[in-house]
Formats: sequence, structure tokens, C-alpha cells
Amino acid sequence: MTDLDFIRKLVIPAESKIVFLVMDGIGGLPMQEGGLTELEAAHTPNLDALAAKSICGCTIPVSPGITPGSGPGHLALFGYDPCRYIIGRGVLEAIGIGFDLDPQDVVGRGNFCSVDEEGRVTDRRAGRISTEKCIELAALLRENIKLPGAKLFVEPVKEHRFVLVLRGDGLADDLTESDPQQVGVPPLPIRPSENAKEPAASQTTADLINSFIAQARKLLANQSPANMVLLRGLDKRPVIPSVKDVFGLRAAAIAVYPMYRGLAKLVGMTALPNGHDLADEFSALEQAWPDYDFFYLHVKWTDSAGEDGAFARKVAVIEEVDAYVPRLMNLQPDVVVVTGDHSTPALLKSHSWHPVPTMLYSRYCRCDGAQEYSERACVHGALGNFAAVELMPLALANALRLTKFGA
Amino acid sequence: MTDLDFIRKLVIPAESKIVFLVMDGIGGLPMQEGGLTELEAAHTPNLDALAAKSICGCTIPVSPGITPGSGPGHLALFGYDPCRYIIGRGVLEAIGIGFDLDPQDVVGRGNFCSVDEEGRVTDRRAGRISTEKCIELAALLRENIKLPGAKLFVEPVKEHRFVLVLRGDGLADDLTESDPQQVGVPPLPIRPSENAKEPAASQTTADLINSFIAQARKLLANQSPANMVLLRGLDKRPVIPSVKDVFGLRAAAIAVYPMYRGLAKLVGMTALPNGHDLADEFSALEQAWPDYDFFYLHVKWTDSAGEDGAFARKVAVIEEVDAYVPRLMNLQPDVVVVTGDHSTPALLKSHSWHPVPTMLYSRYCRCDGAQEYSERACVHGALGNFAAVELMPLALANALRLTKFGA
Repeated sequence: MTDLDFIRKLVIPAESKIVFLVMDGIGGLPMQEGGLTELEAAHTPNLDALAAKSICGCTIPVSPGITPGSGPGHLALFGYDPCRYIIGRGVLEAIGIGFDLDPQDVVGRGNFCSVDEEGRVTDRRAGRISTEKCIELAALLRENIKLPGAKLFVEPVKEHRFVLVLRGDGLADDLTESDPQQVGVPPLPIRPSENAKEPAASQTTADLINSFIAQARKLLANQSPANMVLLRGLDKRPVIPSVKDVFGLRAAAIAVYPMYRGLAKLVGMTALPNGHDLADEFSALEQAWPDYDFFYLHVKWTDSAGEDGAFARKVAVIEEVDAYVPRLMNLQPDVVVVTGDHSTPALLKSHSWHPVPTMLYSRYCRCDGAQEYSERACVHGALGNFAAVELMPLALANALRLTKFGA
Repeated sequence: MTDLDFIRKLVIPAESKIVFLVMDGIGGLPMQEGGLTELEAAHTPNLDALAAKSICGCTIPVSPGITPGSGPGHLALFGYDPCRYIIGRGVLEAIGIGFDLDPQDVVGRGNFCSVDEEGRVTDRRAGRISTEKCIELAALLRENIKLPGAKLFVEPVKEHRFVLVLRGDGLADDLTESDPQQVGVPPLPIRPSENAKEPAASQTTADLINSFIAQARKLLANQSPANMVLLRGLDKRPVIPSVKDVFGLRAAAIAVYPMYRGLAKLVGMTALPNGHDLADEFSALEQAWPDYDFFYLHVKWTDSAGEDGAFARKVAVIEEVDAYVPRLMNLQPDVVVVTGDHSTPALLKSHSWHPVPTMLYSRYCRCDGAQEYSERACVHGALGNFAAVELMPLALANALRLTKFGA
């Protein structure tokens, strides 16, 4: 049941505390037929001990066969139908760097890129220029580009990436992208998308962004290698009811990378001050423990290793996380969910559609005899294959935060 | 997610090849309590070896407890919501004999039948007259019956069965049937159904068909035993987006029986020249291998044996199919799905509601330790019980033909 109004009416207050330990891309595949997955290969005594006290299963983030991006993968974990609430990548990046988006802002994700003399893209990421250079170029654009009737923000993110925000009356999204997604061709002009809801306003906005791009090209003409910009994911922020409103949770997010803090903030979580590694994350959890009901703790490096095809590194990250599990359990959480937002098998070097090994611990979970946290144990868990969006209601129930439905 | 627009946006090109080996009515039941099903009793070393490299589960064709006809069973396998796309039996028969239906045609499935002097049905199939006789009688009707404002086709199928097609302006479906489904009573008049969308056009069409029936009765009066007609499944062809459009597949259908070729053509598959037996079917697969992305290979005889209550014959058919599996695997398909459109237990002598043992093989399937292709192994497979309509997205994912959803 993914109807938020349905859940909202059942929420009751409680003192219980819930932790979602999200290992990004945790699900994997064997590198050789008949072999072990990353999680199966990892030595995880603490996670396995937790599995023995938990109910296990495999989450399907979106639907069978569908590989989720980070946005839909996380929204489902947070209890929101990922096919209903759609988040553009630009919106995610903006919120992730702490940029406060107004509801009317149009935001896009930018790349500094390289083009040849005829304007054809030669490197979509301009050789991944330094973050320092990105800061310098973003300032150059921000200070020199003028758009009639709109305020402009050009915010550096990391390496070649920046965020473009247009603020003004009468702007609309439903726009195409300028990034041609390949080299050897020029960037594309921004246009209203075919099914734009407000075509005139989208056209006005497209005109402004095309003017931004034209001015940027002139300002960057003498730069090397970053002499042009590409824009993707031009959107307004979606309107999503908060976890406080729907689930009654004071929720905190602990995540090193901007995108995941951004996602959590989009559903009304408080992003705690970010550190750099697992030690920082678990320290943040301990420090904030008295102040929140719900903690989302995001581990990025499982996914990074999977994306790099680094099986052994992914195993090592899982084992590192395992070592922190006793610190988590020492806090005596009422509900602990260990899961991922999707699978990222090193074999595929990418996100994948495979269901995500998941366990839910609580005093009331009706544990199922699974003796380890792994794909093969979770497959036979009592939760079976189930939609990730159902995790939040299950966690709330186990935290005794939902009253009964009907008389 | 059965929303075709959702899937369509995620489809990407690939060179991979997918085979759906569909053993009609494969699922079964033990003849004695505690015994084995047909599939469990069969000696299937090749299917079992494939199961060990596959992910297994049981498909639910429509919903729990619902016994599907061949139409809904196949539409679900092909990735189409069988409750949304409804195919009349007449439409199926017409397409199956290669009749090109116009979108406006109203088509019905006819039986030559026997009636007594008072017009009461004595044999709904007229003793299963020969196909030659059917051809002769169809010509008699086609050449002599005149309907004002409509063109008439009367096409023989096999034995007592024929197809009636009315072509003209202003025709509508939503019609009742004339076949009373029992003997001892007269055929029923055709009427608009209660919730007809265009009652006037349906009435006009019913009048034409009732005129056809009246003229047919006169023309057949001196025939024996086929001296009357019965009509069922009067419909227009449904509008179904093609597998090429939705899933990006060049798809071929290999099926001996007309109905299954017709179903496949209705979703835009190319029906390959049909042979008579399994040897013909697997030869057709090999010959067409370079030319298509997707192959639907239909085995009818499992269902026929089940319908006849012939347990041992169904076992024998399964074992015969098993012997062809090495030829299939020699083609090095990227994805192989082995399943059925429904169960047909010999015990029940009919289609049934039981979930269908199913396995999906690919390099990326995350195999689940099942060691044989059988009901009891599939029940414990990692796919669990799942909707048959989800097979196609899963197959596409395993063929690396779907990109990720969302940023």
C-alpha cells in the first residue's frame, strides 16, 4: 500500500527509534557462474548475527526488471512511490550542495565540457577538471552572464559538474537537454519537451537557457580544456510531502555525498553535518541519537566499487561496514533495516535490476531463521520478494508507530 | 509495472537474443495424493541442467485462483496486461488462419452444428465433420448469403470450425453469442450486450448476423449432420501496441496451431512458416536465428495431453521437448525463458489456475540453486510467485535491453 494518505491516518506517536542502514548498490552477482556474490564472499559476522534475529527478504525498488537510478531507489526506501514522485538530476544536485531551491526555480545539472573549433563536443567532462577550476569558471559565468527578467545562480559541485538555477516569474520546466550524450556532435539547443504542460512558459525558459549557453561559450572561449557547458535534467523541484507530515518522523540523514543528503532533504529529513568516511558517519549517528526518531545512514562506497567493477573492494567495504554494526546496536535501536537502494554487481559495473538483500530487525519482527545477511539467505527469507516502498510501513509497524486500520 | 509507456521509454538497442519456450499447459498436479506432477515425473536431464543455471519461480498468469484461456495466458507472457487487452476467440481464429482483419471488421468463431426438426441443438460440433466438408459448406454460405451494406467472409478453419467476418461501415461489437453451450435447446439470437458502447450500431450488426444465421439455416437444411451454425466470440480486433514498438524487439513466432500464430501476430510478431511437429519447430528456430531478437516457440501437445487427461502422454511430450533443449542452447541465446501460458493438469482435464513452473536463464540471472525444472523446485526459486506479465521486463533486463529509470 503506497498511498500516503492511507498511512498518514494510521500514524501514532511513539518513542521508538528506527535506523535504515543503506549500503548503496549492495546487491551483487557472482563473477563466475556458480560463484559467490560480493555480499556472500564478505566475512560479516556482525551482520550475520543480526540476520539471525531479523526477518529477511529481497526488495524490488521499482518493479521487476527495472534498474533504478539513485533517485527512485531512495524514494522507494523512504516510502514514496518512485513512479509518482520524479526527481530530476539537477534538482538532486542543487539540494545536495545545500542550495535552497524555491518552488518556482528551474534548475539543471551542468557539465563543463570541451568542444572543438566547430563546436563539436570532444570531451563531455572536460577531462574532469579540478574542483578549484570549476569554482573559478562558475564564478566567471555567474558574474558576467545577464538574463533579462531572471536571476541566475551558477554553483560549482565537484570536478566538471555545476548547478544552474534560474529564478524568476513565469518560468516552467518540461525542457529537453543540451547534452548530446556523445562526442563528435555539437550540443543541442534547449527546447520545450513535446508534452510540456505550459509550452509558452517553457519556451521562454528555453530561450533564457539558450542565451545562458551562448554567453557561456563566449566567456569560456579561451579556456582549456573546459571551453563550453552541457545541461541536463532541467526541472523544478517536485512537491513531496515530508516524512514528518506522512510518517510522523523526526528524521535525520547521514550521508557523505551531496546527492543523498539532497534526496533526504527533499522528503524533509535533516541532513546532519557530513564527514568523509564511515567513522564520521557512525559518530554522527551516535551524537544525534537523542534528537531524532529515524536515521538514514548512507554508505556510498559499495556502489562506487560495484560501478568500478571492483569485486574485492566492494567486499572490503561490506566488511568495513560490518565492523561498525556493534556500535549501531549499542544504541539499542528499536528497528534496524539493512538494505540498499538497488544492486550494483561488479560483474555489470552498473546499477542493476536485481532485488536487494534486505533484513529488518526488531523485537517484533518474527524472525525467519535466516542465518546470514546475503542474497541466498534473503531469497528464502519470510519477507520474500517485496516492493521497497513497503519497507517504511513495515519499519513503522515494528516500531509500534502505526495503529490498526478499521474498527 | 505493466504500464507499456513506462517500459517503452527504458528500451535500448542490443544485439542480444531472447527465446521464450512455451510448453502450453505445462503446470500439472499429481494423479494421486502425494504423487508427482507430470513435469516432476518426466525425465528431463537437459531442462534440469538449465534450471541449475537459471533463476526459477512460478508465474501467475492473471491473478491468484484465475484460470486463463489461451488468449490472456499468452498476452501476459508477451508482456501485456491480460485484463486490459481482451481478445475474442473469433479474432484469434481469424488471425490464426492468416485472415487480415481490418480494424473495423466484426469477426466471430463459428461451429457447424446439428439441430433437430424443431431447431434444438443435438450436437454442437456436428460430429466433428471433416475439414473438406467444412470447406464445402463455408463456400456454400459465402457464395449464397447476401447482407445489405456489409461484405461477408466465411472461412473454414478445421473440422466443424469456421470464421465469420462482417466488413462494412457502422458495425460494432459488444454482442451476445448464439451458441447455447448445451444440447436440447435452440441457438440463441444475437443481441447487443447489456453494456454495449454503441447500442445502435451493435443492434444493426446483430440484425445482420441474425440474418446470416437465418439464411445459413435454410441453405444447410438438407445437409447432414451439419445443418446449422453456432457463433461465439463476436468482436473487433483489439488495438495492441506491437512488441517492436513497446519492447524494441524483432520477434518471431514458431507455432504449429493457428491460434498461437494469431496471438503472436496480434502483438506484431512475425509468424514463421509452420510445420507439424517439434522437429519442424526447432528447425525453424535455427533457420530464423540470425533474423530476429526474440523467439516465441510454442509447444501445443503438453496442453492437448492435459486436456485429454493423458498423464503419461503429457510426460512423454515433456521428455520429447527436453531432448531438443541442447539444440536450443547450441544457438547460444542470451536469455531463455521456459514456461507455459497456464497449467493443464491431466487430473483436471482442463486449464487450471495453478501457477506455472518457470525458469529464466541468462549470464546475469542470479541463479538460485534450483536443481531441476519442476513445480516443487520452482516454488522455492528466487523469483517466487510472480505475475506472468513481469516476465517480459525481466527477460529484457537480462538481455541488457533496458536502461535505468531515473537519475
